[in-house]
Amino acid sequence: MSLLPENIQRLVEALNRLPGIGPKTAERLAFYLLRKPEQDLAVLSDAILHLKDGLGYCSICCNLSAKNPCELCSNPERDRFVICIVEELLDLIAIEKTNEYKGVYHVLHGVISPMDGVGPDDLKIAELVERIKKIPPKEIIFALNHSIEGEATAAYLMRALKPLECRVTRIARGLPVGGNLEYADSQTIRRALEGRQEY
Amino acid sequence: MSLLPENIQRLVEALNRLPGIGPKTAERLAFYLLRKPEQDLAVLSDAILHLKDGLGYCSICCNLSAKNPCELCSNPERDRFVICIVEELLDLIAIEKTNEYKGVYHVLHGVISPMDGVGPDDLKIAELVERIKKIPPKEIIFALNHSIEGEATAAYLMRALKPLECRVTRIARGLPVGGNLEYADSQTIRRALEGRQEY
Repeated sequence: MSLLPENIQRLVEALNRLPGIGPKTAERLAFYLLRKPEQDLAVLSDAILHLKDGLGYCSICCNLSAKNPCELCSNPERDRFVICIVEELLDLIAIEKTNEYKGVYHVLHGVISPMDGVGPDDLKIAELVERIKKIPPKEIIFALNHSIEGEATAAYLMRALKPLECRVTRIARGLPVGGNLEYADSQTIRRALEGRQEY
Repeated sequence: MSLLPENIQRLVEALNRLPGIGPKTAERLAFYLLRKPEQDLAVLSDAILHLKDGLGYCSICCNLSAKNPCELCSNPERDRFVICIVEELLDLIAIEKTNEYKGVYHVLHGVISPMDGVGPDDLKIAELVERIKKIPPKEIIFALNHSIEGEATAAYLMRALKPLECRVTRIARGLPVGGNLEYADSQTIRRALEGRQEY
C-alpha cells in the first residue's frame, strides 16, 4: 500500500511518465500543486486537455498550426522557392527568431532513428517529395541537428531528392558566436576549418 | 506575436510556472505531450484537476488524507504517546519506509521562513500545542530538516512546548550510511563527533 493518498499517487505516476521527470521530481511537483488553489490546477489541467484542439498539419509545410495553410505558407512575402527543412516546430521557431530567413519551411516531425522505432515513413518525407515535384524550388536548405540521427536523415533525404535535381545546401557548422576555441570539441573545429571562408 | 499556436503557448506558460521547469523544459514537455494520444492527455489532465478531491487534514496529526482521522492515527497498533514532528507528508513517508517507527506523527506543512512569508501561524503549530495539552505524550521527536528554516522552526517549537514539560528529542545528525568522511562537510563531521556513542 502506498502511503500517499490515491489522488496524489495518481498524479505522481502521470508526471513520472513525462521525459526528464523522475519519481522524486514528480513527487515534488505534485506537492507543489497541492498547495495551489483549485483555479490554478484547473488552468493547467485545461491547457493539457485542450492542447491539440483545432491544431493540424499545414497541408503545404506540415507545420503544426491552427490554420491551413499555416501563417508562414499563406504569407505572400515569404519566398516559396526556398524551403528550409527542420526536424521540429521548435527548430522552425529558433530560425524565425533570427528575423533573417525569408523562405518557407518543411517540418519533418522527427528524425530517422531505428533505436526509437522511427523510420522514414513516420516522417513527413513523402509529403516533401510530393511538394517539390509539384512546385520545384530554387533551393532546399537542410537545417537538421548535427546528431547521428540528423545526419542519417539528411543522407536519406539526399537520396530521395536526388532525382528531382534541386539545389540542396545545409546550414554551416562551426564555432558558435562567442564560442571559445579552447573548449570546442575537435569535430566542431574540424567542421569550422573545412567551412573556412575568405577574409 | 508568438509563433507557437495558442494552445501550445498556453500550456508552455502553465508548465513554466511549476518549480524547476524553465521555458525550455516547458517547451520540451509541451511538444512531448503533443505527440501523445488524446487519452494520455486526459489522464494527466484529470489527475491534476481532481488532485485535491476528498483530501483533507487529519484532525489529529494534520496529515493529508482521504480519511479522518488518517490511517496512521486510527491504527490501534501505533503508539499515540510518541509524536514525531515532520515538515511535510513526504518526510513522514520517508520515515514510514524504514518500518522502524511505531509512534504517530504531526505534520507542520512547512517551516518558518520569513523570506517566503511563512510565519508560525501558517503552520500547524497551534494544533500541535492543543493536541499535546489534551493528551500529553511521553516523547516528542523533532524530525525537521537541518536547514536554517528547519532549525528556526525547531527553536520556535521548543519555546512553544516548554510550558508543557514534555520530553523532546531530535533525530541524530551524523555521517549518512555509506557516507565518506573525506567528502563530508565539516558541519556534519562536527555533529557526528558531538553525537558520538559508546562502542
